[in-house]
Amino acid sequence: MMDTDKRINFGIVGLGTAGSALVQPVLKNKNFRMAGAADLDEQTLARFKADFPEASVFTSAEAIAEAQGIDALFISTPTQFHTGHVLAAIANGKHVVTEKPIATNLEDADLMIEAADKAQVTLMVGHSFGYETPIKAMREVVKNGELGPLRMMHNWYFTDWMYRPRNPEELDTTLGGGVTFRQGSHQFDIIRLLGGGLVRSVRAMTAKFDNSRPAEGAHTVFLEFEDGAAATAVYNGYDRFRSAELGYNVGEGGLPFNLDKYGSARSALRNAGPDNELELKKNVRYGGTSSRNWSNIPDSHPFYGLTIVSCENGDIRQSPDGLLIYSEEEKKEIVIPKGISGRDHILTELKAAMVDNIPPLHDGRWGKANLEVCLAALESSNKRKEIYLNHQKMVQD
Amino acid sequence: MMDTDKRINFGIVGLGTAGSALVQPVLKNKNFRMAGAADLDEQTLARFKADFPEASVFTSAEAIAEAQGIDALFISTPTQFHTGHVLAAIANGKHVVTEKPIATNLEDADLMIEAADKAQVTLMVGHSFGYETPIKAMREVVKNGELGPLRMMHNWYFTDWMYRPRNPEELDTTLGGGVTFRQGSHQFDIIRLLGGGLVRSVRAMTAKFDNSRPAEGAHTVFLEFEDGAAATAVYNGYDRFRSAELGYNVGEGGLPFNLDKYGSARSALRNAGPDNELELKKNVRYGGTSSRNWSNIPDSHPFYGLTIVSCENGDIRQSPDGLLIYSEEEKKEIVIPKGISGRDHILTELKAAMVDNIPPLHDGRWGKANLEVCLAALESSNKRKEIYLNHQKMVQD
Repeated sequence: MMDTDKRINFGIVGLGTAGSALVQPVLKNKNFRMAGAADLDEQTLARFKADFPEASVFTSAEAIAEAQGIDALFISTPTQFHTGHVLAAIANGKHVVTEKPIATNLEDADLMIEAADKAQVTLMVGHSFGYETPIKAMREVVKNGELGPLRMMHNWYFTDWMYRPRNPEELDTTLGGGVTFRQGSHQFDIIRLLGGGLVRSVRAMTAKFDNSRPAEGAHTVFLEFEDGAAATAVYNGYDRFRSAELGYNVGEGGLPFNLDKYGSARSALRNAGPDNELELKKNVRYGGTSSRNWSNIPDSHPFYGLTIVSCENGDIRQSPDGLLIYSEEEKKEIVIPKGISGRDHILTELKAAMVDNIPPLHDGRWGKANLEVCLAALESSNKRKEIYLNHQKMVQD
Repeated sequence: MMDTDKRINFGIVGLGTAGSALVQPVLKNKNFRMAGAADLDEQTLARFKADFPEASVFTSAEAIAEAQGIDALFISTPTQFHTGHVLAAIANGKHVVTEKPIATNLEDADLMIEAADKAQVTLMVGHSFGYETPIKAMREVVKNGELGPLRMMHNWYFTDWMYRPRNPEELDTTLGGGVTFRQGSHQFDIIRLLGGGLVRSVRAMTAKFDNSRPAEGAHTVFLEFEDGAAATAVYNGYDRFRSAELGYNVGEGGLPFNLDKYGSARSALRNAGPDNELELKKNVRYGGTSSRNWSNIPDSHPFYGLTIVSCENGDIRQSPDGLLIYSEEEKKEIVIPKGISGRDHILTELKAAMVDNIPPLHDGRWGKANLEVCLAALESSNKRKEIYLNHQKMVQD
């Protein structure tokens, strides 16, 4: 179905923050062509069409799923719609990358995995932070064994996630909302990638601090791997202490942020008033007044909070320019070229799968395994006991 | 038994690092008199006697236990000897503060608690970091409720503990060695104090990274409290990444340390050679060439790594001058006067118990509850499952 010039015709389903973030990576990737987009919001779609007159635009996920001339779709619709949209895409022979978490439950994940297997199309899950260059580099250091066996991994992140403008489903756990689903998907992706993938059990506490934002906004998660390595994932999205204070004042996108503006997400939301949250949220959609410019290369590699890895013979963490390796003899910095983002890596992984038949690391089963950790964290908190996992997948790299 | 001038005649049993650290607090406290010390090492004892000619010196714990003119003893002998030394002191009517952990097992802790109850003498456990001014101040903020219910507490600490000069028992888990006993006792004291004391369960991984130092040198511990609050205690003592990098380059004593000297504890030990470790260890004893000068007030409050507390309406962490409070409206610093150390607080608590009949917070049952968490962490790691606790004690403050 690909064009004779071998470019993959790529479509984006849902032009919110996640969908918009993939536009620049597609544009700069010579293996891809921006072929289309779908969105429910006409203004957003019009802005996209104005930027890409040759691309097709659609007002529904079903329509773009059926469209000719599109090879692969990025499903960046709300989590509760992933299954329907992914299955529609697969039914039309399209390769799919769906946003994390893959679904709100394991059964839906299985439906997608089975459908993709049957149709022999690629199913990937992302963006999640395990795609990012510094984490991939950490994985390489762990894997090459220079620091000995991996024993502990920690990811700790204090953000303003709960007070950024949100659609209702983002604050509804039953629809895959809250930080355990939405941000745990990043943390567990990082931790599972570093640790080799096979989480044995999870013990967690998830918490809702604010009744007006009725989803999990914080969690403390202990993970043990089959090989005995342990990890913690700590998250607090209530816009108070910010973990960037502990490091380089760098955020997820690699951009600096102003720590002096204390609680700015919370106060902006309060000042706007509850009736205007959806409008604020709309402004972050493609080309909106609050949408992010993804075309500049940041001065720093992106940080997803603090990630600290302990092997038997050394530790690893990030620096703005790469990694800090604390080995037996020295603390050294590995400088890693900037400019290749996690979303660039998504496209590379997708192209390799579609064109070169290289199984993607972040396939449906990987995404399901990340989801299993999210669900286990919620269940562990609910039942106040350790939860043992059954659907983990080893890293294939 | 106290003198007519109401001073408490205080003796120190074991003039190692812990014992030596209590000398200055005793000297500057008008309610105490430095009345005696016991040590197996004649040179150490001679240095003490030279500094305090009016104090009595003894070459055994049994002898100082029986000595007249001493009201209270600080038992800073190796952990495996605490029980015998504490019971001897109590049998002679002396009040006791014993170093943490109280013992290597709960049965021994019970023997000491019962003996102290029967003899109606004070039994306390310390020094542990919950005595320190910044942690006590954090507890006050949590307790006064201005930030709402406590939900998460984290203590994360990466040090050189495993490569400082050690006596054999410090590297033997069966004798109470390794970081889970020795440093977990600090972390769990901090966390239990902040959280109100009642830990419900523990899930942990402890790890030995270096066969030549055959005790736990790292751990990852998840704790859930009866009220649903969660905590993590992460420790890595292998002298690689140092958590002081994340903050203010301040250590336990409030002193700055030079992060440029990478791995200096490990290299110093290697350069000295294994045969000389005991000699190096001896030099840190009272008045030795490597002993610390405890008489200066540091520029910063002491830090036991990173302690981050999340309540429903705000977070708390330390600054060099006090606490940072991240409330709904603002990030503010509470400046706390320096100069009152955790060891000063031990003496205050002891005097209050002995003279004013105020039950000490860090009594034998509190120390036993801290020990129960240490033991549960080791057991959880060993059995790879969650361990439920039965001997926790509520904070009385």
